Amino acid sequence: MIDIDDSPLCRDGKVLILAYDHGLEHGPVDFEGVPGSADPGRTFEAATHDAVTSVAVQKGVAEAFYPSYEEDVDLLLKLNGTSNLWMGEPDSAVNCTVDYAYDIGASSVGFTLYGGSNHEIEMAEEFRDAQEAARERDLPVVMWSYPRGQGLKNDTEPDTIAYAARQALELGADVAKVKYPGSKSAMEQTVRMAGPTKVVMSGGSKTTDREFLESVKAVIDAGGKGLAVGRNVWQRENPHRILDALEQVIFAESTVDEALAAAE
Amino acid sequence: MIDIDDSPLCRDGKVLILAYDHGLEHGPVDFEGVPGSADPGRTFEAATHDAVTSVAVQKGVAEAFYPSYEEDVDLLLKLNGTSNLWMGEPDSAVNCTVDYAYDIGASSVGFTLYGGSNHEIEMAEEFRDAQEAARERDLPVVMWSYPRGQGLKNDTEPDTIAYAARQALELGADVAKVKYPGSKSAMEQTVRMAGPTKVVMSGGSKTTDREFLESVKAVIDAGGKGLAVGRNVWQRENPHRILDALEQVIFAESTVDEALAAAE
Amino acid sequence: MIDIDDSPLCRDGKVLILAYDHGLEHGPVDFEGVPGSADPGRTFEAATHDAVTSVAVQKGVAEAFYPSYEEDVDLLLKLNGTSNLWMGEPDSAVNCTVDYAYDIGASSVGFTLYGGSNHEIEMAEEFRDAQEAARERDLPVVMWSYPRGQGLKNDTEPDTIAYAARQALELGADVAKVKYPGSKSAMEQTVRMAGPTKVVMSGGSKTTDREFLESVKAVIDAGGKGLAVGRNVWQRENPHRILDALEQVIFAESTVDEALAAAE
Amino acid sequence: MIDIDDSPLCRDGKVLILAYDHGLEHGPVDFEGVPGSADPGRTFEAATHDAVTSVAVQKGVAEAFYPSYEEDVDLLLKLNGTSNLWMGEPDSAVNCTVDYAYDIGASSVGFTLYGGSNHEIEMAEEFRDAQEAARERDLPVVMWSYPRGQGLKNDTEPDTIAYAARQALELGADVAKVKYPGSKSAMEQTVRMAGPTKVVMSGGSKTTDREFLESVKAVIDAGGKGLAVGRNVWQRENPHRILDALEQVIFAESTVDEALAAAE
Amino acid sequence: MIDIDDSPLCRDGKVLILAYDHGLEHGPVDFEGVPGSADPGRTFEAATHDAVTSVAVQKGVAEAFYPSYEEDVDLLLKLNGTSNLWMGEPDSAVNCTVDYAYDIGASSVGFTLYGGSNHEIEMAEEFRDAQEAARERDLPVVMWSYPRGQGLKNDTEPDTIAYAARQALELGADVAKVKYPGSKSAMEQTVRMAGPTKVVMSGGSKTTDREFLESVKAVIDAGGKGLAVGRNVWQRENPHRILDALEQVIFAESTVDEALAAAE
Repeated sequence: MIDIDDSPLCRDGKVLILAYDHGLEHGPVDFEGVPGSADPGRTFEAATHDAVTSVAVQKGVAEAFYPSYEEDVDLLLKLNGTSNLWMGEPDSAVNCTVDYAYDIGASSVGFTLYGGSNHEIEMAEEFRDAQEAARERDLPVVMWSYPRGQGLKNDTEPDTIAYAARQALELGADVAKVKYPGSKSAMEQTVRMAGPTKVVMSGGSKTTDREFLESVKAVIDAGGKGLAVGRNVWQRENPHRILDALEQVIFAESTVDEALAAAE
Repeated sequence: MIDIDDSPLCRDGKVLILAYDHGLEHGPVDFEGVPGSADPGRTFEAATHDAVTSVAVQKGVAEAFYPSYEEDVDLLLKLNGTSNLWMGEPDSAVNCTVDYAYDIGASSVGFTLYGGSNHEIEMAEEFRDAQEAARERDLPVVMWSYPRGQGLKNDTEPDTIAYAARQALELGADVAKVKYPGSKSAMEQTVRMAGPTKVVMSGGSKTTDREFLESVKAVIDAGGKGLAVGRNVWQRENPHRILDALEQVIFAESTVDEALAAAE
Repeated sequence: MIDIDDSPLCRDGKVLILAYDHGLEHGPVDFEGVPGSADPGRTFEAATHDAVTSVAVQKGVAEAFYPSYEEDVDLLLKLNGTSNLWMGEPDSAVNCTVDYAYDIGASSVGFTLYGGSNHEIEMAEEFRDAQEAARERDLPVVMWSYPRGQGLKNDTEPDTIAYAARQALELGADVAKVKYPGSKSAMEQTVRMAGPTKVVMSGGSKTTDREFLESVKAVIDAGGKGLAVGRNVWQRENPHRILDALEQVIFAESTVDEALAAAE
Repeated sequence: MIDIDDSPLCRDGKVLILAYDHGLEHGPVDFEGVPGSADPGRTFEAATHDAVTSVAVQKGVAEAFYPSYEEDVDLLLKLNGTSNLWMGEPDSAVNCTVDYAYDIGASSVGFTLYGGSNHEIEMAEEFRDAQEAARERDLPVVMWSYPRGQGLKNDTEPDTIAYAARQALELGADVAKVKYPGSKSAMEQTVRMAGPTKVVMSGGSKTTDREFLESVKAVIDAGGKGLAVGRNVWQRENPHRILDALEQVIFAESTVDEALAAAE
Repeated sequence: MIDIDDSPLCRDGKVLILAYDHGLEHGPVDFEGVPGSADPGRTFEAATHDAVTSVAVQKGVAEAFYPSYEEDVDLLLKLNGTSNLWMGEPDSAVNCTVDYAYDIGASSVGFTLYGGSNHEIEMAEEFRDAQEAARERDLPVVMWSYPRGQGLKNDTEPDTIAYAARQALELGADVAKVKYPGSKSAMEQTVRMAGPTKVVMSGGSKTTDREFLESVKAVIDAGGKGLAVGRNVWQRENPHRILDALEQVIFAESTVDEALAAAE
């Protein structure tokens, strides 16, 4: 962990990542409800919203769309990722080197670690290479810390999520992206374990505005530093409105009611 | 994805790759109907046809034949490939480095990814190395994106093919070579998923002229950018005639009837 | 083994490492009794005690906390380590390169070897790389030498622990961190096997002050050179008091009674 | 494939390799009939015969014997090879780098590929490295192309041998060393598949002079470019005589009767 | 094989290696009879005997003890080795690079190959790297050539030992360390197979002076070039006396009776 508050990934020490690697991880099915959402340009457009500190995409999407948005959007290059056509023990291909990410304009990088997978050790060593290369380029490092694999009974247990946040700290991530552990107190424990590494909640499947904002609010109240959100933004017909509300909750520390009102 | 319209692989933004790596992938059996087709020189000769934007071959064939055709033919070096003597979970050997491909005159490179194979992750990482090396040389990258392997029930399902096209975009290919998903509307979905990555249809087994041209026409009408064709050209006694017709369909946007007439 | 008596890891030829990588190796459960112990700052604070020659942490904790303590604490970077979310045959990810450890201020490095594991050979080769890189930087090398794995019936047998100490000598470690083999005479045998490589006892689970100090005293009397201790220090409400006592036993060669008295 | 007619491996476009790596591949048993044959010096002596274009040996034999023969013998360094003490799925260790082969005087290199083995992909990638390194040194590349492994029912089937020859062409070998497919017409098919890559027959087990020469003659008549022979030369009491005859068949294009007469 | 007669490993073309890596390979059990033998200094002291051409140790022992003996002892760095805590298919970790061995003063290197093991291919490739690096430093290479593994019924069969010696020649070792094949005539066959590579006998378990010297004498009479001996020297109370006798047998070509008399 190093101090990243002055990096483009942060605004007032908080983070709102708009994640859009679902085309690789989940495939076309994630775009079904809102067909226009298959177009990465629509997500880059949404990412110009002030609330968004960075957009997280895979290399190919970055190459194709970032050049048109480099003035208005901050690029987090997600370095690894894999299709779900493959169904083995959780693992992820490193699709982009840090040097290449830097060359195409990334100002931070992301990396998934599946703690508990039979590939954990290999992934941790790939993370090491990425993290040390990122340090040379002064790029903040976000770990998607998702325990998963045959040894894990329940990957949404609070203790597991707290452990995942700790792994991010111990291995040198600057931000830990973890699942919501179900309650504010569990989130406080997770934040405690991460120490100075910023914890952000992973947005997950699409829910109602209120439900979603309440979990984000709990994260912030628990000391979390923000959100990495995908489907809950770009699967909505109007991504702008929910981003308005998120801006209120995360950066203005408004209540959920205030946020919903402001976003009308 | 980067802009490749000015590269030799494209003509008016369209692509017609004459693929000839069957000697490695399938062996002598593919040359049985037209014995002369075993001679790579015959395919290079066909590739001098204006309709062909590039010929796709393995390293050894390129070394032996490209020097005699470098004025008239554009070389796409297929970087990986494997014999079917081997019968394990789909995988492919990287037989040529990008630097070597460049040195012997390639102006673009091709790479197979078997999404869904137990080797998908390893192949994706090999693709990364090839793609980034190709970027250094300004060589367009074509992905043969073919989901295949024990986890896949049906590799010709439209959703699978659309996913394959998306993988090409996400991982940074400039052209996605995919199977024909069976209908124009399925092809439209595939093209949508690929975003700005050009989608070209894989020619497949030899069929009648009309059947073949109708599927190519559907690809073009669906927004596809062309074709990578092998057996449907060089397994014909007269490759020239079908190339005349393909030129009409792909570049002149003629109807199939017009194309067949023009190629009499 | 090289002479490390003049390195910051030693004081009068003795070693007292305060180990704090439990957040990675064991997870949040180790911090339960004393919640404040989850904060690495508390352990760095304890490490300012004169008794402590070095604090041993993983890369991320070092990056975050060492800069505030570099005047008062000596950093031993633990190069490998793995979560216990993963449950395969013992292995450990190399999370930090020696060069990076050096760059962030480490004055020595640590490395776990699981002798007897199916990964022993791979780990030994990773150790080789680390050891030779450490030699270039003049960083002493501590081996956590812990036989473990399916081939081992009993990893706390005196013969196994003596063998572990010998491995440290043979492979080029300067300090061997081993489990307490149960008696002073067994420890003497372990020390004999290690030759000039310094043997330090691994602290293990928390026990009473007297029990703990008596095992440390036996180690010193047997020719051991000190201790690497974690939970027996930072799981106490007052780490300072037990460090006072350890200083007496290890460096002043006091009796346990004297040490307990001095630490009142 | 590149033009190697001017290289020392060829004489009038033909090739006669005296292969002597049996000590590694088969062990002492191959030397039993003619004990003197265990001495590599005897084979180097035979290789001074004008008929022999190159002697093919492993690194250690080359280091020990080539210096005494560098004026009179041309060295083909066989880069990979394995003992038959090991009995797994066909594979071969790369025992020598191309750079080292070059440094000790090799003017060409040899490499075994077991198409169809579960190690085919790994071997093909090792071949790639060797082939590209050989190109940098202008060393012709001979592929020992031997389909073998659990997926293969019959590795002496004509189609399999033709496929093996094609692999050599596609992967960039200049010479394909294959088994004799049993008839002149099958050999013609093999030669056709190899295109401009020269096909040479692998000598195989020792037979009578006439039988042996007749198969060589069939190879030449079928368009093959020569022979890589081991046991049929050095397992004879007088290697010179059979080399006289081979020179007639291969280079003078004599009949078998003429060759046998000339070699009396 | 290169000429090593002028290297410190040889004296009059003969070799007597004092091997002392048993602490790693076998563990403390090997030191039980003569507890002082656990101290590497005792073996280095023995190695100052004129009969000993080199002492063979692992990296860590070399680092610790060689500096005090560099005037009087010649160092053979054993590059690989593994504990017997691990019980898988025979394999060995490469614990030291050639460059590091050179830097700490080695004038020759040793490497174990387990022919017939499922790891044979990997070990042969590691040997290649070591051998070629050693050539750059002009360090003679000794192969511990020990067929072993699931495919081998009997690793002390004369044919297997002869094959092992041949592997050493073929792969480029300068000295082959093999087991005694049981008789002088079997040793002659082994020596014949090794060609110019020097064959030395592996000392094996401790026996009586006469038995031991008689096997050494048979090796010399069979054309072997000496001995690599460990336990038969340092497991004796007085290593000096047996070294006196070995000097007689190996370098003075005395009879066993003469040697025993001279060593009274």
